[in-house]
Amino acid sequence: MDTKSEAGKAEQLRKLHDGPRILVLANAWDVASARVMEELGYPAIATTSAGVAAALGYPDGQRIPREEMLEVVGRIARAVRVPVTADVEAGYGTTVPEIIETAKALIAAGAVGMNLEDVTGDDESSLVDIALQAEKIRTICEVSSSLGVPLVVNARTDIYLMGIGDPATHFERAVERLRAYRTAGAGCLFAPGVRDRKIIARLVKALEAPLNILVSPGCPSIPELEKIGVARASTGSAVMRASLGTVQQIGKELIEKGTYDSLLDGAIPYADVNRMMARQPS
Amino acid sequence: MDTKSEAGKAEQLRKLHDGPRILVLANAWDVASARVMEELGYPAIATTSAGVAAALGYPDGQRIPREEMLEVVGRIARAVRVPVTADVEAGYGTTVPEIIETAKALIAAGAVGMNLEDVTGDDESSLVDIALQAEKIRTICEVSSSLGVPLVVNARTDIYLMGIGDPATHFERAVERLRAYRTAGAGCLFAPGVRDRKIIARLVKALEAPLNILVSPGCPSIPELEKIGVARASTGSAVMRASLGTVQQIGKELIEKGTYDSLLDGAIPYADVNRMMARQPS
Repeated sequence: MDTKSEAGKAEQLRKLHDGPRILVLANAWDVASARVMEELGYPAIATTSAGVAAALGYPDGQRIPREEMLEVVGRIARAVRVPVTADVEAGYGTTVPEIIETAKALIAAGAVGMNLEDVTGDDESSLVDIALQAEKIRTICEVSSSLGVPLVVNARTDIYLMGIGDPATHFERAVERLRAYRTAGAGCLFAPGVRDRKIIARLVKALEAPLNILVSPGCPSIPELEKIGVARASTGSAVMRASLGTVQQIGKELIEKGTYDSLLDGAIPYADVNRMMARQPS
Repeated sequence: MDTKSEAGKAEQLRKLHDGPRILVLANAWDVASARVMEELGYPAIATTSAGVAAALGYPDGQRIPREEMLEVVGRIARAVRVPVTADVEAGYGTTVPEIIETAKALIAAGAVGMNLEDVTGDDESSLVDIALQAEKIRTICEVSSSLGVPLVVNARTDIYLMGIGDPATHFERAVERLRAYRTAGAGCLFAPGVRDRKIIARLVKALEAPLNILVSPGCPSIPELEKIGVARASTGSAVMRASLGTVQQIGKELIEKGTYDSLLDGAIPYADVNRMMARQPS
């Protein structure tokens, strides 16, 4: 993809966060899932790191080599016309230069948005110092702008998702972090693990910036999230896990009962999948 | 994978065709789907070329480069303990030396079985001469044996699936081809497109060799196929297309109604997917 076209897509993605309408993203993990979402009219494609990792045989949590993750991101970006924003976990590194390598590779792959988590390992001991995390975000914004493709950074805090520290401090500490990430240049702020309508509304007010909510059981519907003022809602790995649930259900019926009712129920016809894949992206 | 271990798996796969029990295969297209099937107790994993191609962004029908197809086959073979048999379409070539390159690459990737179609293009004009197809099969068997990993060739005729020629001649011509493929060394004979119980029973009798049936709407159940004497039943791309149907349904509900009931219904929990991926294959 040329820089001009990519810059246009980055601008397009940024604008999708700043209007009155909520940006809904159903995260993809391969070209087939991305194409399905694009055909349904999603204005952008987000990837799921857990989904990409599972498809390739890795557990989630930065076990997959950066190159393999970005290879899939690149395939998806080349296969769709809409902007692609990539889930690259904590950026596959701990230092600013390492994160910048990831950001550059992401631009080279054709993505124009990037999630960045503030936990680099499996538990809260790896929570990144707030100043260092802000520095990473600031540098990503500076370097990507200087390359002509200002990445839309979706800065994530795992305070709620991991339940880090005293629950009574979650709101205050999440807000402190997300505000710092916004000041550093993040285009959107992500607080996965929050599903309570009141807390979401309080976050929207406190942050005064685009907020991303991860949909999960018990979370308000998309129209409700939009009404509260949420800018972006995404599914994380859930679509992949639901599709894998279908795989499991079919596999179980076939091997245990020897029937295949669930196999034929709702499958996309062969010709339709082929048509979807044969289409040229641009 | 070392040659000895691979030879053992080839032998294991061959035996699965020769017992009184039918071999049921739910074709996989990435590591996640392969792991799900292995955990359900499938004794072997077959791949689907259409599924692998769609995940990577190609339509079916030998559009995907051989290297990309075999990269996925290798990932799957490294990720499971059971034998893997690969759908490599018509072998990604038209000449015997080209097919042999594919067979060698397949062994290098860790697979021990191989589908081989007798149509190399999109229509019946590409139906391969019966003697040439037999020569390809014979050479695959010779070369793979000399390499210490005698591949189980699943020799497929597309006479029924493509409806090639006068329907009144389908049975006779399919039998003629499949018998020639068996004589050439095929471990199993594949006649996709056949779903009528009587024709399946006639094929079993006429061939006197392991027969693979593609399950599809209207086809007998697995226990019925076993009773008739079918050696192997597989799903082709149907599991992938069903899982993509789930993706489409979720994506549609989320973007049109803003709800996500279908997203949460039947999804495999995050921790379970991670556990499934973290397991070491051997």
